[in-house]
Amino acid sequence: MSSFLGDEIVGRISRLAAISETSEQLTRIFLTEEHRAAADLLLSWMRDAGMHVQFDAIGNVCGRYEGERPALPCLMLGSHYDSVREAGKWDGPLGLITAISCVADLHKRERRLPFAIEVIGFADEEGVRFASTLLGSRAVAGTFDERVLDAKDNAGISMRDALFQFGLDPAHIGAAARSRSELLAYIELHIEQGPVLEAQNLPVGVVTAISGATRLAASLTGMAGHAGTVPMLLRRDALAGAAECIVAIEEFCRTDRGGSVGTVGYIHAMPGATNVIPGQVSFTIDLRAVSDAHRNLAVADIVRKIEDIARRRKLLLQVDVTHENRTVPCAPWLKAQVSEAITGEGYRVFELPSGAGHDGMAMIDIADVAMVFVRCRGGISHHPDEHVDVADADAGARVLLRLIENFRPRGTRE
Amino acid sequence: MSSFLGDEIVGRISRLAAISETSEQLTRIFLTEEHRAAADLLLSWMRDAGMHVQFDAIGNVCGRYEGERPALPCLMLGSHYDSVREAGKWDGPLGLITAISCVADLHKRERRLPFAIEVIGFADEEGVRFASTLLGSRAVAGTFDERVLDAKDNAGISMRDALFQFGLDPAHIGAAARSRSELLAYIELHIEQGPVLEAQNLPVGVVTAISGATRLAASLTGMAGHAGTVPMLLRRDALAGAAECIVAIEEFCRTDRGGSVGTVGYIHAMPGATNVIPGQVSFTIDLRAVSDAHRNLAVADIVRKIEDIARRRKLLLQVDVTHENRTVPCAPWLKAQVSEAITGEGYRVFELPSGAGHDGMAMIDIADVAMVFVRCRGGISHHPDEHVDVADADAGARVLLRLIENFRPRGTRE
Repeated sequence: MSSFLGDEIVGRISRLAAISETSEQLTRIFLTEEHRAAADLLLSWMRDAGMHVQFDAIGNVCGRYEGERPALPCLMLGSHYDSVREAGKWDGPLGLITAISCVADLHKRERRLPFAIEVIGFADEEGVRFASTLLGSRAVAGTFDERVLDAKDNAGISMRDALFQFGLDPAHIGAAARSRSELLAYIELHIEQGPVLEAQNLPVGVVTAISGATRLAASLTGMAGHAGTVPMLLRRDALAGAAECIVAIEEFCRTDRGGSVGTVGYIHAMPGATNVIPGQVSFTIDLRAVSDAHRNLAVADIVRKIEDIARRRKLLLQVDVTHENRTVPCAPWLKAQVSEAITGEGYRVFELPSGAGHDGMAMIDIADVAMVFVRCRGGISHHPDEHVDVADADAGARVLLRLIENFRPRGTRE
Repeated sequence: MSSFLGDEIVGRISRLAAISETSEQLTRIFLTEEHRAAADLLLSWMRDAGMHVQFDAIGNVCGRYEGERPALPCLMLGSHYDSVREAGKWDGPLGLITAISCVADLHKRERRLPFAIEVIGFADEEGVRFASTLLGSRAVAGTFDERVLDAKDNAGISMRDALFQFGLDPAHIGAAARSRSELLAYIELHIEQGPVLEAQNLPVGVVTAISGATRLAASLTGMAGHAGTVPMLLRRDALAGAAECIVAIEEFCRTDRGGSVGTVGYIHAMPGATNVIPGQVSFTIDLRAVSDAHRNLAVADIVRKIEDIARRRKLLLQVDVTHENRTVPCAPWLKAQVSEAITGEGYRVFELPSGAGHDGMAMIDIADVAMVFVRCRGGISHHPDEHVDVADADAGARVLLRLIENFRPRGTRE
């Protein structure tokens, strides 16, 4: 099968990736020169695709392709165009550029639909500069928290000042907000950032939900002691206790039919000397599940398990919730249309949750949300090795274009 | 029971502890002003106890109390008088000061024995300054490694220069060595540095051996990944693997009838972010047992277990031995005499290994070795909270004095 839109998309992905703070590895941060250059390029592609464009007060790029008549509500397509540091080039741009290419194809064919299409490129989803994520989509959803304007970057510059220096007026951010009546749905295509589609040998998948996450900080306090002189049965070894907790968390999630994932990513044992029994250990727990109810049950089960371990080992346990994100379910009526489009392109329909966060987490406040995942090599993301085959980029574009052309607003009879 | 030598010993412990680099917490390091001041005080106490004294070329304090006639071989008693940083005041000095007090008691009673007694205070056992332990006892045993003269302290001063600045000539260190024919035995009294005697409710114990130690550096390499997007069954989580290893090491040692102790004191997980599956983990293993044969078997068993864990989890394992100390068994004929003395003082005989290292590890090369342990509070050591009750110091002195007065050289019939 020859590439339909894949070559164009991959070419544009590379052109956009050339706009980077560092020449070897992609880094494109909110409210920088690279942000502006990337926006200019994206806006030019949007114009070429027949869209009216706009650069909003938070730095999002917005393009509108009118429907059969002006002022119709829109199907909104989007993703983000900022990156983490030393990033891959697909995370964000693939969804945005694919959407532009789909609209360009409609435009080329002079195809108008009974609804408008808007394509939006969010200025900051990763939250690298001000340690606050989803800035672009929160502005559009009307949930931007003005307190983050006082957040400072590593150079001590506040977001407020950075916006001014960039030529944007923080007082106008409210005007970037859209209302529910303007949107028929929000659909985002994105790389999976995980290895599941690759394991399934499928180029695309239907996202069931953006998993909510709970992050916990745990600390266990026992008694430090000499590695040679304290017999095993008289020890209160905080690291041995933490190890048992880590094994228990993994075992819980591996066997959890509700499908949670749990990760201990950080651990610190004190005093940390080869010949001293650790007296105190801190570690984090990141727990995600496809429903809030299930995640909350899983958190409670895991906390109970580590409480039991601590009690049995006579360790003092402290557990605090440091972060919590609700689960964003994808709308069943939209999932059904995504599935139809996938079937229409000849692929098996496979559903999977998104463990990573996406702009849909903000957009759910003003629209029903759906996501299409595209396979990425080895599940690698946030890394220069992030890769999507041109054939998969093409498959994603075919599915998205079919989805757009066959789109029926909620409640519409077929 | 009123204190016999306990008050004198505890008083001297406190006087010696006042000689410290810092006023709040005891720190007494090799070849410093505090070393010299402590040596002067100890030599004065030795002289008062009727001993001929000598300050040898490595900075040891040596006192000799002649037997029934001059030039008899000696029973050597000793311990060290350097400390770790922010140390307790008992680790080392208790054995040295108790030995001096015992000799002082013999001297007061004009009691001469059919052998000489030598008391030796080793200048550096802890190895704080030059990261090389047992310097004093190695010089006496004739196993001092001249290459360590080139070792430098944190200020960049070599041991050779430090010796010169202190007024000692490194060329004379060889003359500090003693020969096997001069020594009938080496006996050291020391605080236990562990909680076993306290748990046994006993003031003193007989040491069976100074446990050998093997230290391993292990690293596990899996695959880093997004904490949300990689399903549990597709993970190669290096920290979950390390946790399973830590639990297995603890379980092995807890159930090891051979009596090994194993400690993972240090762990480092990379990249170490809350929301990233650790791709690589380094940790240390400290393993000790009362015989070299058993320790070597235990090391092999543990390595096999962690190899199995790594293989099952598809993690790359690297294990290196970073340090190895042979086991020093205490001589059965000496242990029998220690036990007799303990029984003679009305205490139950209890045997325990020494998990910590001691000067006997060097002295074994020129003499049979025995050790008497004295209970310390909570097993705490290398910490200002290190504490010995005066009654236990007294019990230790009574046992040591009885041991000296009833001492029969090896092979002597009762």
